[in-house]
Order: sequence, then structure tokens, then C-alpha cells
Amino acid sequence: MDISHRQFTKKIQFKDALGNPIAGKAIRVEQTNHSFLFGCGAFDFMPLMMKGDDDYYKQLTESWLDIFNYGTLPFYWGNYEREEGKPEKELLMKTAKYLQDKNVKVKGHPLCWHTVCADWLMKYDNETILKKQLERIDREVTGFAGVIDMWDVINEVVIMPIFDKYDNAITRICKEKGRVGLIKTIFDKAHECNPNATLLLNDFNTSINYEILIDGCLNAGVPISAIGIQSHQHQGYWGREKLEEVLERFSSFGLPIHFTENTLISGEIMPAHIVDLNDWQVDEWPTTPEGEERQAKEIEEMYRILFAHPLVEAITTWDFKDGAWLNAPSGYVRKDGSQKPSYKMLKNLVRNEWWTNTSVTTDENGFATVSGFKGEYKLSADGLTASESLTDEGELVVTLK
Amino acid sequence: MDISHRQFTKKIQFKDALGNPIAGKAIRVEQTNHSFLFGCGAFDFMPLMMKGDDDYYKQLTESWLDIFNYGTLPFYWGNYEREEGKPEKELLMKTAKYLQDKNVKVKGHPLCWHTVCADWLMKYDNETILKKQLERIDREVTGFAGVIDMWDVINEVVIMPIFDKYDNAITRICKEKGRVGLIKTIFDKAHECNPNATLLLNDFNTSINYEILIDGCLNAGVPISAIGIQSHQHQGYWGREKLEEVLERFSSFGLPIHFTENTLISGEIMPAHIVDLNDWQVDEWPTTPEGEERQAKEIEEMYRILFAHPLVEAITTWDFKDGAWLNAPSGYVRKDGSQKPSYKMLKNLVRNEWWTNTSVTTDENGFATVSGFKGEYKLSADGLTASESLTDEGELVVTLK
Repeated sequence: MDISHRQFTKKIQFKDALGNPIAGKAIRVEQTNHSFLFGCGAFDFMPLMMKGDDDYYKQLTESWLDIFNYGTLPFYWGNYEREEGKPEKELLMKTAKYLQDKNVKVKGHPLCWHTVCADWLMKYDNETILKKQLERIDREVTGFAGVIDMWDVINEVVIMPIFDKYDNAITRICKEKGRVGLIKTIFDKAHECNPNATLLLNDFNTSINYEILIDGCLNAGVPISAIGIQSHQHQGYWGREKLEEVLERFSSFGLPIHFTENTLISGEIMPAHIVDLNDWQVDEWPTTPEGEERQAKEIEEMYRILFAHPLVEAITTWDFKDGAWLNAPSGYVRKDGSQKPSYKMLKNLVRNEWWTNTSVTTDENGFATVSGFKGEYKLSADGLTASESLTDEGELVVTLK
Repeated sequence: MDISHRQFTKKIQFKDALGNPIAGKAIRVEQTNHSFLFGCGAFDFMPLMMKGDDDYYKQLTESWLDIFNYGTLPFYWGNYEREEGKPEKELLMKTAKYLQDKNVKVKGHPLCWHTVCADWLMKYDNETILKKQLERIDREVTGFAGVIDMWDVINEVVIMPIFDKYDNAITRICKEKGRVGLIKTIFDKAHECNPNATLLLNDFNTSINYEILIDGCLNAGVPISAIGIQSHQHQGYWGREKLEEVLERFSSFGLPIHFTENTLISGEIMPAHIVDLNDWQVDEWPTTPEGEERQAKEIEEMYRILFAHPLVEAITTWDFKDGAWLNAPSGYVRKDGSQKPSYKMLKNLVRNEWWTNTSVTTDENGFATVSGFKGEYKLSADGLTASESLTDEGELVVTLK
């Protein structure tokens, strides 16, 4: 598969602090970050923040940071603001800033969703619910701007107005405003609060329904930055054919595509007759050696296909460790924190095969041609360094200091 | 079922030509047309126009006119303009005017569709195809304005860009522009050419796909006057439950609903495994006595449900006589022109049960309270008459001359 769009080749002139070309020198070229967003649920950083020096979470999050440069933090309204007017801002801000300090881009998930919604909203009429929804968006998007500039703005709208498992405030307002009407109102507010934010529409429905919904939104002027596609594969790997078919259909809009919630499990797969994954409640769902080998192979194939697609900008695995959502063996690490084959496979892809660590030698005028994977770089020679973002073909002058 | 929204009660003062109240007189109240559009495919009027005094078509169209006040005429591009630049305008205009003279409202069907499309379009690039599509809309919508002011503007868009039975010009441009983008371009043109026209979006897909498509279009400002729903039931009657469920879902937009293409057959039903009805090609598809009884019952139930729904403004039966589309026994009359039980049933509904023919007596000041089904009326006494549209509760002064 062609992944040349993930790479750059660039002519760089290296100079010293006095402006003289650094001629005939070996320059170390060390990648420090990817342009591509290799993401994972970062929920485990929250207990670390709460518990301080807890060994289990320290080790867990360190192995997380050894692969990922992008994390999703939970802003489920029903958990974030259990009691009206008392949001969990402090913990979330601390966690987000911790990740930011580790060079990890953070996404908030989600601003509007009918599930894990705040029950206390249901005592209000629809007009008030919508008003409070917009105020919440202002509070979170404005309040976290600069720390979190990427949001799953509205989640699972295809099913939202017909969701009938239980009454909730968001289904009520979606019924009243219609899907596109609600999306537009919600996105417009988020965009107004942080015009630089990356704003995602996100859904598990990858059918023609979602295509038509996106089409309608874009024609109605909804400021969608990227299309979010969930791919929880508890019932078995989609396989190359379905994955490529989904990519082809959602590419037609020309927007960036984010795989926002990816799951592949390393145990028995969930029976096919389950329609809502949440209906599969089990006490034990063991990871198995054969399952772990299969999971690693499937994740590898999937990441290779997605990395090769020019419009895909991000892949987020939903669970870092086993036993999170649905108690599934869905992680890169087992419950005890030990690493599965999938962990080692992905780390090798992200930090070795798709990672650049090389050196070049400058000519008599200080020029060298540098090639590598797009991202952040440390360039150095004789104890002098520079940090540069290397993502395109343009010529560059770099001063090592 | 409540059908009071189809009726009016009105206080009318009757006066003579000199302005004196007509006191203590019996006034004949005779309905001459319905506000509701009872429609049918009017294709059989075209051979009548071509053949002149042909007995078969004369009798056929006369029995048509005994029930219907609304007809659909074919503007399939591939038939209407078999050779580029040579449209069948003369025949269509003659037929439409004939119907108009008979007090029948005419709808043109369709302005844009991927099926029965003009093959000669395929030699052009997409930009030219779209240009010719818009020119055709201008030619037909402007050219027939005043005679045809109602159009199925664009047909079956849910499947349009993924239609893969054969290559065609419209699927090509729909793929390129997207569903909502093409709909908007096409509707904007039709609206520009006749701002007073009733413009329909029409589809056989009644799933959530079509709901989301309409939602997107309305939010994108597409000037849709009414939602068109096809209901070809060659594979069996939907039944009350499905019909009410469809009505409920498509009512949420608050727009008028037209059942644009209704079929119920009076023979064996088509097997359920057929996905595209066009794939069922049979030489003979007989009407049967039991089938005819069943058809009449099903049509009756359906019309009663639709007539009772406040947003439904029109029902069009697709085939007037058996052996038209798919050679199906789908008509109100058999191939020989004889009337089926469904014909008699519907004529009784439309021209008797839901029809007003009564008289009232005025008081000493010429006032009388008139009730009836909304529509056009002839009011008369002692050889003096007036024609009035009676559709609301407001008071009215009528001068009989």
C-alpha cells in the first residue's frame, strides 16, 4: 500500500547561530511526534490524577504514552455534571493539561448525546433543555479552549430522535428540531465558542443513513471539520472489504475522516444476533492466547489500510486496557497491565516502521535532503539542536543552537 | 375516523342581482369539485388525443373523469425527447389542456430521474449534462406554466447515486454533486422558472434514509412544496399499521404529503424476494374475482386512512387500467375497459360518501348555514346560479344571477 502521502522529502540548509552554513557534518534527524493522530481512550489518566503516585496507573499510562499522541477524555454530561451546576471541571482540566504537557493532543467526547445524559435535564421543557445544552457547550468549549481544541460535538444522531430504550432530554429536543436542525444549532454554538476547534460529527451507523445525514448537514452549512466513524467490532472484524467500502463512501465528501472509536477484541466474539452492543452483559469475558494473536493481526491490517488512505487523519482505539466498556477483552494491555501482542505490534508500527530516526550529511553549503514520516523533529549536530515540524516538500533553513 | 378537516360549515347570505336578500327560499348546493386531489395516471388521455374519436379510449377516459380531478402526465426525458432538440411538446400540451378543460389538475412527472433517461445525454461531460438538465427544466416548467403548475421535480434520489443497473447521465451527476446538492440545484431551477408551482420530491424509499434526506434538504433551503411518497404494493398491501407509521414519520416536517404512485393489484401478488419490482417480467398476470374483491377492500381502507390524515392532500393511483406497468392487474378497470369492484367502491367514496349534494332554506334575511366537503360548488335557486369555492368557516355573501 502506498503511504507516500504520510512522508516528506525536503531540502534543508543547516546554519549555526552566526548564520554560517554547517558544512560536511552529520546531522541527527530524530522524530519526536507524528502528524497522524494515533489515539486511544485516555480515561485511565483520570485515576492517575486522582490517586497521584499509584503504581498501577503510573505504569499503565506510561505504556499508553509509549505509543499514542492523541487521547479522548470523557465529557458525558450525566457524569461530568451529576448535580446541576457542579461540573467536574477541575479533574478534567488537570488530566487534559497533563496530557498536553506530554505532547498528546486531547479530544473531548461528547458535547451532545442522548446516552449517559444528565437525568436532571428531564424536569425542564424542551426550550430550556436546548438552552442548557448550548450553555454547556459554551462552558466546556470556551472553558477548555487552548487545552482541548477538538470535540466530538454530537454523537449518534442517526438513531437520536428514534432512540426508545429510555426517555432522555436529548432525544426529546432532537425529535422536535429534527436531526439536521439540532446538529446545526449545536455545531454553530461550538464553532462560535472556539472558531479554531476541530469539530466532529460521530456515529456508529456507517450506512447510507449517515451518508445522507452528512450530505444534508454540509449543504445546510454545518461547520463539520471531520467525519467521525465508530468501529466497535465486538462482533468480529469488519475485514478489508467492508473497511475499504466504508472509506470509499465517506471519502466522497472530501473531508478528513477520523476513526473515533475502534475496538477489536482478543477473546470470543459477541454473538451476531445482538443489535445494541450494550445488551451483551457478561461477568467474565476472558482474553485468550489465540484471541490475542488474532486481535494483533486484525488491528495491524486495519491500521495499515487506514494509514494508507489519504483522508484518514486519526485512529482512536476505544479501550487501552481489557475490561473497560462491556467488560470486553478489548485492550492493548490485559487487566493486570501486561502487554498483549497487539501492543507490541502497534508500538512497532508507530514508533519504528512508521517512525524516522536517521542521520544525513550536509554538503559544502550546509544542504542536506531529509526524508521521513510527517511530524515533529529534533535536528542536532555536535550538541546544537533545533525543533522543527517537517510535513511538506518546501525548502527550509534550520538554525541549530 | 375523523374527517372533519375535509369539511366546512359556513353561514352564507344569498342575494339577488339587485342586492336584495333571497328570503325563505330553497337553495340547491351541488359540489362540482373536491379540494382534495383524487388522482390517477392520465397516460391514457394521450392515445385519445392521437387517435381522436377512438371508442375504447373515449369510454376509458370518460370513466376516468367520472372519479378523478387530478392526473399525472409523463415527462420521462428518454421518451419526451428521444432525439435531442425534438421534444414531444405538442402532444403533451394538447393532453394537458384537454384535462385542464375538464377541471382536472395536471402534474408533470418527472423533471429529473436516472431511469427512462435520455441516452444521448451520455455522450456529454457532467458539466454539460447538468446544463442540459437545467435547460430542460426551464423549457418544460416555463413552457407549461399555467397549464401544468405541479411537478414531480426529482425522483428516487435515495438510490440515484448508487443506482448500478446501467450507466446513465443522471446517476453520474448525482454522484458528483451528492444527493442534496443535486436536489437543491434542480429545485432552485424549477422554482425560479415557476415560483407558483407545487414542487415535489418523490421516492419509493420510505425508510429513515428518505426522512434524513428531506430533513437535510429543508435545512439546506430546498423549496419543497410537498413530500411525495410512492406506494407500489405489487408485493401485497402495506396494511394499516405500516401506512400509519409512514404517515407519522413523514408528518414530522409539517409539509403536505402526496401519495404519488399508489398500486394495489387484483391478482396474485409478486413474490417477496423480488427487490426491484422491474425484475418481475411476466407475459400474463391475470386479474381474478377474489383478487378484485381484495383490491377494492384494500384501496378503500387505504383511502379512508389517507383522507383522514390532515397533511395528506393528494392520492394518485398509478395505473387506471390493468396491464400497464409490469403488465400487472393494477387498474380500476380491466384491459377491456370494464369496471372492477375497486372502481365502483372509489366512485362511491369520491362522488357520493365524500360528496355534497343537498339543499338549504334561507331565513327572512337570506341567510342559510351550508355544510359540506371542501371544494367547488354550484349554488342555485329558481334558475339563478353562482359558482363558489367553499373551503373555510368564514361568512360569505353570494349573489345568484
